[in-house]
Amino acid sequence: MIEHATIERISSVRSATLGTVCPDGSPHLVPCVFALDAPLLFIPVDGKPKRSRELKRLNNLKTDPRAVLLFHGWDEDWSRLWWVSVTGVAVILRTPTDMNHARHLLLARYPQYRTPEELDPIIQVQITNVMEWQADREATP
Amino acid sequence: MIEHATIERISSVRSATLGTVCPDGSPHLVPCVFALDAPLLFIPVDGKPKRSRELKRLNNLKTDPRAVLLFHGWDEDWSRLWWVSVTGVAVILRTPTDMNHARHLLLARYPQYRTPEELDPIIQVQITNVMEWQADREATP
Repeated sequence: MIEHATIERISSVRSATLGTVCPDGSPHLVPCVFALDAPLLFIPVDGKPKRSRELKRLNNLKTDPRAVLLFHGWDEDWSRLWWVSVTGVAVILRTPTDMNHARHLLLARYPQYRTPEELDPIIQVQITNVMEWQADREATP
Repeated sequence: MIEHATIERISSVRSATLGTVCPDGSPHLVPCVFALDAPLLFIPVDGKPKRSRELKRLNNLKTDPRAVLLFHGWDEDWSRLWWVSVTGVAVILRTPTDMNHARHLLLARYPQYRTPEELDPIIQVQITNVMEWQADREATP
């Protein structure tokens, strides 16, 4: 169960960081855009050809589907700092039917995408836990 | 060996994301501030008391010292997107002597810190690998 205020806070940022674990057990990070439809979170991987290392996030999730997303508001006034960390289990959506809803949400949120076909595949994270931190409720990070 | 342009790019951002791996093998992310003195990177943990879960990054690094840092420039113009991912091995600095240089760099970079004592302990990452991505050299992320 994700609180409404948390959903609003997450949706207020335009990009997040996706964390996965490599088969050798080391951590892997990549920035991402996303759409939240709690308890689901969608992360596009665009369809253009890339060097194989850049699909590491997908290979990692095949081996270990545990994903974490960090949403972070930076401010030089540290009393305004906050972050939300969302953990969950990822599946890779690959068919147009499976991707339809996520594509719709992502296109609405990011006008930079012009066609649904640009979004392929899409990582779907089923959220299992949310952790929040906010500076004005506690010490600096 | 880290290129000068990469050092400048990393130093241009004010915060990063630190990724570690939990003892159960799941990924863990937290935003952080940092100072770079290549090939070393310093991440403060401020000295104020915190709930135990917030020191997870330290417990994780005790079990597995592999760390990854993501530096990320967001822009609504996606042709300007870039990120740098730095992997390395972490040690926790705990004595004033060990922390002296890092404290000096961090205080110079973040006027939000007022005294060296606020920075205790400090995570030191010895950089072993750097990966860079830049939109205008390739496809969108």
